[in-house]
Amino acid sequence: MSELQTQIDDLVAANHILFHHDVVDGYGHISFRSPVNPQRFFMAAALAPGRVTAPDILEHDLDGKLVNGEQRATYSERFIHAEIYRVRPDVNSVVHSHSPAVIPFSVTNVPLKGIINQVSFMQEGAPVFNSRLVPEATSPLVNKPAVGKALAAILGDHNVVLMRGHGDTVVGPYIRETVSRAIYTEVNARLLLQTLSLGAPIEYLDPAENREMMKVGHSTAGSSHGVDRIWQMWLDELTD
Amino acid sequence: MSELQTQIDDLVAANHILFHHDVVDGYGHISFRSPVNPQRFFMAAALAPGRVTAPDILEHDLDGKLVNGEQRATYSERFIHAEIYRVRPDVNSVVHSHSPAVIPFSVTNVPLKGIINQVSFMQEGAPVFNSRLVPEATSPLVNKPAVGKALAAILGDHNVVLMRGHGDTVVGPYIRETVSRAIYTEVNARLLLQTLSLGAPIEYLDPAENREMMKVGHSTAGSSHGVDRIWQMWLDELTD
Amino acid sequence: MSELQTQIDDLVAANHILFHHDVVDGYGHISFRSPVNPQRFFMAAALAPGRVTAPDILEHDLDGKLVNGEQRATYSERFIHAEIYRVRPDVNSVVHSHSPAVIPFSVTNVPLKGIINQVSFMQEGAPVFNSRLVPEATSPLVNKPAVGKALAAILGDHNVVLMRGHGDTVVGPYIRETVSRAIYTEVNARLLLQTLSLGAPIEYLDPAENREMMKVGHSTAGSSHGVDRIWQMWLDELTD
Amino acid sequence: MSELQTQIDDLVAANHILFHHDVVDGYGHISFRSPVNPQRFFMAAALAPGRVTAPDILEHDLDGKLVNGEQRATYSERFIHAEIYRVRPDVNSVVHSHSPAVIPFSVTNVPLKGIINQVSFMQEGAPVFNSRLVPEATSPLVNKPAVGKALAAILGDHNVVLMRGHGDTVVGPYIRETVSRAIYTEVNARLLLQTLSLGAPIEYLDPAENREMMKVGHSTAGSSHGVDRIWQMWLDELTD
Repeated sequence: MSELQTQIDDLVAANHILFHHDVVDGYGHISFRSPVNPQRFFMAAALAPGRVTAPDILEHDLDGKLVNGEQRATYSERFIHAEIYRVRPDVNSVVHSHSPAVIPFSVTNVPLKGIINQVSFMQEGAPVFNSRLVPEATSPLVNKPAVGKALAAILGDHNVVLMRGHGDTVVGPYIRETVSRAIYTEVNARLLLQTLSLGAPIEYLDPAENREMMKVGHSTAGSSHGVDRIWQMWLDELTD
Repeated sequence: MSELQTQIDDLVAANHILFHHDVVDGYGHISFRSPVNPQRFFMAAALAPGRVTAPDILEHDLDGKLVNGEQRATYSERFIHAEIYRVRPDVNSVVHSHSPAVIPFSVTNVPLKGIINQVSFMQEGAPVFNSRLVPEATSPLVNKPAVGKALAAILGDHNVVLMRGHGDTVVGPYIRETVSRAIYTEVNARLLLQTLSLGAPIEYLDPAENREMMKVGHSTAGSSHGVDRIWQMWLDELTD
Repeated sequence: MSELQTQIDDLVAANHILFHHDVVDGYGHISFRSPVNPQRFFMAAALAPGRVTAPDILEHDLDGKLVNGEQRATYSERFIHAEIYRVRPDVNSVVHSHSPAVIPFSVTNVPLKGIINQVSFMQEGAPVFNSRLVPEATSPLVNKPAVGKALAAILGDHNVVLMRGHGDTVVGPYIRETVSRAIYTEVNARLLLQTLSLGAPIEYLDPAENREMMKVGHSTAGSSHGVDRIWQMWLDELTD
Repeated sequence: MSELQTQIDDLVAANHILFHHDVVDGYGHISFRSPVNPQRFFMAAALAPGRVTAPDILEHDLDGKLVNGEQRATYSERFIHAEIYRVRPDVNSVVHSHSPAVIPFSVTNVPLKGIINQVSFMQEGAPVFNSRLVPEATSPLVNKPAVGKALAAILGDHNVVLMRGHGDTVVGPYIRETVSRAIYTEVNARLLLQTLSLGAPIEYLDPAENREMMKVGHSTAGSSHGVDRIWQMWLDELTD
């Protein structure tokens, strides 16, 4: 229970941090897999991320239903989370956002690839989910299980999937790392747009250094390194 | 009267929200059609939007005259609002702004079209009002009824009209939805500028998905979805 | 004396407003011509604009000397102001800044021209002062009378002169209008950079509409229009 | 001791100023050489710069070890600082950051050169450290002495070295000047990106004017000029 409470606190902070860093605006959502039951996940009720508090965090099952009988509106795109948790046992946290800088890569054939250390998790890049090519989708919204399954299939083993004209979904092993991935996916996209404007060949991250960086990047709480260091700053920013 | 007061409160908030989101600076204005008399509309006296309070909201007729005898300066471009209300019975709120990211599309022949879900209301795009091609206009300002009529004619059935070297005018069925349209028109323009810099073919929104998104996008107060969700956040931002 | 005090108050506010709008950073300065003696002007001592208060405003003569014997460091580029006041009797206020968005136009042959209404004062554009072509200059700094004279000669009858690799100088008939010109010169440059990235023909403001806009743009205090309206908002922003 | 305390205070302020100006985010670090022992330098423990306070400033030797026995985690890239102090006796302060606008120049062959006065210290430009070309490096991180030595060798007599896909390192004669260099390296890179988008020939700073500007740019405390002026503003911004 204490572990669950810690994660709920992290999830509330994650909502506010992602808003503070302009990864989410009034839309977007973040979840974590239940540490008790891997067929369940926790996510806020249908609120703007910047307004989420602990009592708004509700337990969902993998069909996107609330399991404790709350009478609250839920996010219509909760199937993004449910269907990824179903097929990716390594994933314990999911961020869906309208991350602005990834949009240009979602509506063109220009690939979003990593140019900065902090996105080594992106590895060979990010596939694009285009709802027009998905028979189950009647709009860009992932508001039914079948569309969620199609998104999860395109995500595959990657950690980021772009969504055409919509945004992206980023996954990771725990909340803090996933928040960091979502923020640096946005930062990398912003810097890549500027780099591409130079019209010169680009030296992207390569798989060998990605693997090396993934080893040093992961950090445990209290280590003062990596995500542990920056998370403390992100918390401080919320109260400044 | 209670309905009118609610709308006046929304209009005051709308002025501050549009300022907070950099859609208006010290210029620009927003109005709503009177719920009592469709030949009247309410709009602030000639103030910077960020300084508007409830007592500044004044009732205008469709000739742009104050109907209750107040001795206050009014916006010289109030004819934008009056002439649109005259010919578009479906419109109950109008935003005119110097929305910065639309300017490049207003002074070139590059069309502003939608690339993100949130601008499905834009449909096939946005026509451009070029005052130089309007015999009634002696400057880019829409400061006489005849120029307002010309603008309304170019707007036609669209929901956004760009104004060359000036900004845009955005219309909608009620205040909150129109504010959202004005904000996301700016966001979409900003992202389209970045996308165009890539020099690659672009997958714009298509009419079928626009229609589908328009169905899910509309939201009623208290629904926790769409504009209802994000409006609550925009209000919170004003007091942070 | 009351007129002088009003202008000193405006100058203090102008320093803070230009800082708030990122036209000046820790460098840059703004002055006004003495309403009593046209051979004198008032400007702050050598301080960052965001730190200027009324007691820092000092009277200078057109040789750049303090006339009241204060022992304060003065701006090394005060000759920009002195030499423009000497040859432009219509000018009563001068802003020198490192306005960031004008820099690209100062180091290339791409002309800075107006695309938005608010810069009708810019008229046919802005000449560039390139210190390398000025025999009196040994650096880009305008830190001697002879270099100030060269700058004033290149400014000529224009209202904006770009300074290569340095920034710009903007002039006007009174403080508030000149602040507005400096801010919208920056805004126009930012928007023109984005517009030029589209690679399409651009419809610039034309001389006829500039003249027309100049007539409506000027506004007297208390009019609620033009600079009078926006100045009140800029003051409010300083105390938010 | 008083001189040391003054520098510690400056270093704490420097951490917060660089964060405020978006040169560092949660990562990055700044140091100064001990005024007592040139084989020692002072730098914060492994914290986000925006969270550093005076008790966190620790004395390191040139092998990157803490000399006073504190049990604190230190920055894994402290060898950047140590190895530069070892070979550059003129350098008394070092900033390493993920300065965003320099990234495009670090992953392409487009050189970062100065276009604004404030970066006259950059002189003929900035070399690029590419970890892939450095046998001692197994990742872009400078987390061992041998990689620090390789970085210092590429820096050579320059004052800025870019780090491919990572950021830059900026050096200077004292803390305040080095902070200014780091901030204006970022500003210059941002403006150069915009300038390059124009596709026109660019007039860069030339060596003669760089030398001239270096003479006037240096300023002593209390002079009200150059870094002394802007540092006071940067301090004020921290408490606003």
